[in-house]
Amino acid sequence: MAIVTLLTDSGESDHYVAAIKAKILGINPGIRVEDISHKIKPSDIAHAAFVLKAVFRDFPKGTVHLVGVDSTGNRGDSYIAIQLEDHFFVGCDNGLFGLISDKTHQQLAELNTINSIVTTFPERDIFAPAAVKLASGVSITSLGKPMPSFKKMTDRQVKATKKQITGTVIRVDGMGNLITNIPKAAFDTLSQGKVFTVQFGGEKFRKIHTTYHQAEQGECFIVFNSLALLEIGINRGNAAELLGLGYDSVVNIIFEE
Amino acid sequence: MAIVTLLTDSGESDHYVAAIKAKILGINPGIRVEDISHKIKPSDIAHAAFVLKAVFRDFPKGTVHLVGVDSTGNRGDSYIAIQLEDHFFVGCDNGLFGLISDKTHQQLAELNTINSIVTTFPERDIFAPAAVKLASGVSITSLGKPMPSFKKMTDRQVKATKKQITGTVIRVDGMGNLITNIPKAAFDTLSQGKVFTVQFGGEKFRKIHTTYHQAEQGECFIVFNSLALLEIGINRGNAAELLGLGYDSVVNIIFEE
Amino acid sequence: MAIVTLLTDSGESDHYVAAIKAKILGINPGIRVEDISHKIKPSDIAHAAFVLKAVFRDFPKGTVHLVGVDSTGNRGDSYIAIQLEDHFFVGCDNGLFGLISDKTHQQLAELNTINSIVTTFPERDIFAPAAVKLASGVSITSLGKPMPSFKKMTDRQVKATKKQITGTVIRVDGMGNLITNIPKAAFDTLSQGKVFTVQFGGEKFRKIHTTYHQAEQGECFIVFNSLALLEIGINRGNAAELLGLGYDSVVNIIFEE
Repeated sequence: MAIVTLLTDSGESDHYVAAIKAKILGINPGIRVEDISHKIKPSDIAHAAFVLKAVFRDFPKGTVHLVGVDSTGNRGDSYIAIQLEDHFFVGCDNGLFGLISDKTHQQLAELNTINSIVTTFPERDIFAPAAVKLASGVSITSLGKPMPSFKKMTDRQVKATKKQITGTVIRVDGMGNLITNIPKAAFDTLSQGKVFTVQFGGEKFRKIHTTYHQAEQGECFIVFNSLALLEIGINRGNAAELLGLGYDSVVNIIFEE
Repeated sequence: MAIVTLLTDSGESDHYVAAIKAKILGINPGIRVEDISHKIKPSDIAHAAFVLKAVFRDFPKGTVHLVGVDSTGNRGDSYIAIQLEDHFFVGCDNGLFGLISDKTHQQLAELNTINSIVTTFPERDIFAPAAVKLASGVSITSLGKPMPSFKKMTDRQVKATKKQITGTVIRVDGMGNLITNIPKAAFDTLSQGKVFTVQFGGEKFRKIHTTYHQAEQGECFIVFNSLALLEIGINRGNAAELLGLGYDSVVNIIFEE
Repeated sequence: MAIVTLLTDSGESDHYVAAIKAKILGINPGIRVEDISHKIKPSDIAHAAFVLKAVFRDFPKGTVHLVGVDSTGNRGDSYIAIQLEDHFFVGCDNGLFGLISDKTHQQLAELNTINSIVTTFPERDIFAPAAVKLASGVSITSLGKPMPSFKKMTDRQVKATKKQITGTVIRVDGMGNLITNIPKAAFDTLSQGKVFTVQFGGEKFRKIHTTYHQAEQGECFIVFNSLALLEIGINRGNAAELLGLGYDSVVNIIFEE
């Protein structure tokens, strides 16, 4: 049975999420609707992209991901359907989808071009019917006008040299842990057994742990997390608050010669 | 596979919602349980009715909607099952169901009359088993004693004349948008190309937009929304807070001769 | 179709819950994933155990319950799979599972012993694959090394004599109701029609209600709730705040001779 996931910034006290779900099931009650999250910070594309990137590949190939974050088309953005890494995505061409993968897309179409609909609720009126079609095996190209490319935003890039890796915090999670964009692969390539210092805020550490609980309660842990990204936290504490760091804060790893 | 939706004011940190779900699946694991919302303001019948009315028709016909909002039977209210517009509803006869449709009900029964149960948790002990039966094709009349009618509350009514439409805010959504009870149909009938003014708080506007993004960031938009109701918001702002309006605030549309 | 439930303290604004769900569906898209709650207070084993104990038996026998609360293995706790009362549980051996049942377990194994995995996210990397296997009918013993027993914590015990029952509040629910560990069965055995006083804080009551609405609005109700436990609340009020009581507060029932 085909799966459609939902990722929105709509919260859960309104009718919006249930309206999308109802629309999908009303068209095809055989589809399985699975929530990714509805607690994305309103219109926060970076937050939504982080969550989607972290999970989409683990769903079965062919899963359709309906994304309703910053979808009002404020900047005249198109509504699109994309096939990317054997997954389908339906949403607004606001730059979000450019942040979740470096791979070239397989198929791409601009929705709402065959039977144009004016709506204040594209998630229900445009994305849901398109998601059902994709989940039912309809090809992207029959959903709308082909497009050559979709919007890419420039993500914060990690700077890596033999002497230093400089990254930034890309997500503060609900427990206050600071997830950076520094990949384990870059560290592994450059460290090569060298002595190193991890610097952030006024703090300096000379060790990266393998699990959270290697730090004592109240102490800082630094790990490569389950996304293979450098993460800084405080065991049973809120690192963002206690260290005064947040989204976009700089984290350095400095290698000694 | 039959669908049972859940709409409660129980929140998500307690066992209540999972207990209802478990009860349903324990009786019939083949049923699909879909959440509408569990973040209804405690005992807020208007909030629950707004959300349910906004979404129920989009679910497949025959869907069973279990409603656990203000269900303790404070005023001696009965527990009921209703068939209405080809959907089934199970809940407390507290006036909520009278707010979701103007249509005449198809079937109606008072639950808890065949094998009476005393319980502090009717959602699990009375509504869930009844919902499973309805979802399995059992008729309403075999669930309890037939009733002639269920409770209707008087909803705020829109007043419409050739000169003016007067409505009220019936829902402030999670983003602070003000949704009124003024239907597009009434406006379309009365406006007929006339010059008009929309008034609320100290504000006056002479235009209704078709999409949110026709207003600049920080500016007011006025649209007929996806429920075909007049909605007032501020692009990327919280209209309720910034305009000082809320539930029950008056909104007028005045037509010039 | 097999059911896997999820109970975590991860909240809903991060990728964690969806990552567990995606992993399960990615391995076997036929499994039904049902949320119990993701709003457990971080690392609060008592909260998680209360919710799980309150609902697990109502799910169909054979359901797999994946529990991700305090799972980082802070104290060197093992990851385990248990069969208990014909249900399966996968999680961390942190004492939680000892709180949900007094029955002897049917099967028990230490996970992560066949192909050891170092991970900061055991819910996704260890629990999810194990849950899928259990849901697919794989025996617990083939998932890891058999263990003789799992960790039991001593729960607050009720003290009951002919003269008095002394219990404590074991959960303050989202509405502020105080749920105690005093079972209806103990009261029924000891009361035998005697006059009694229920004491908590500075309050004394001589009556136990059968439903919430037997108390007037703003008044205290005392009931044996749907878990057959003594519960104290205030009709349309927050008892915890208004009575100044909370988790672990003492409640006495004193019988007169």
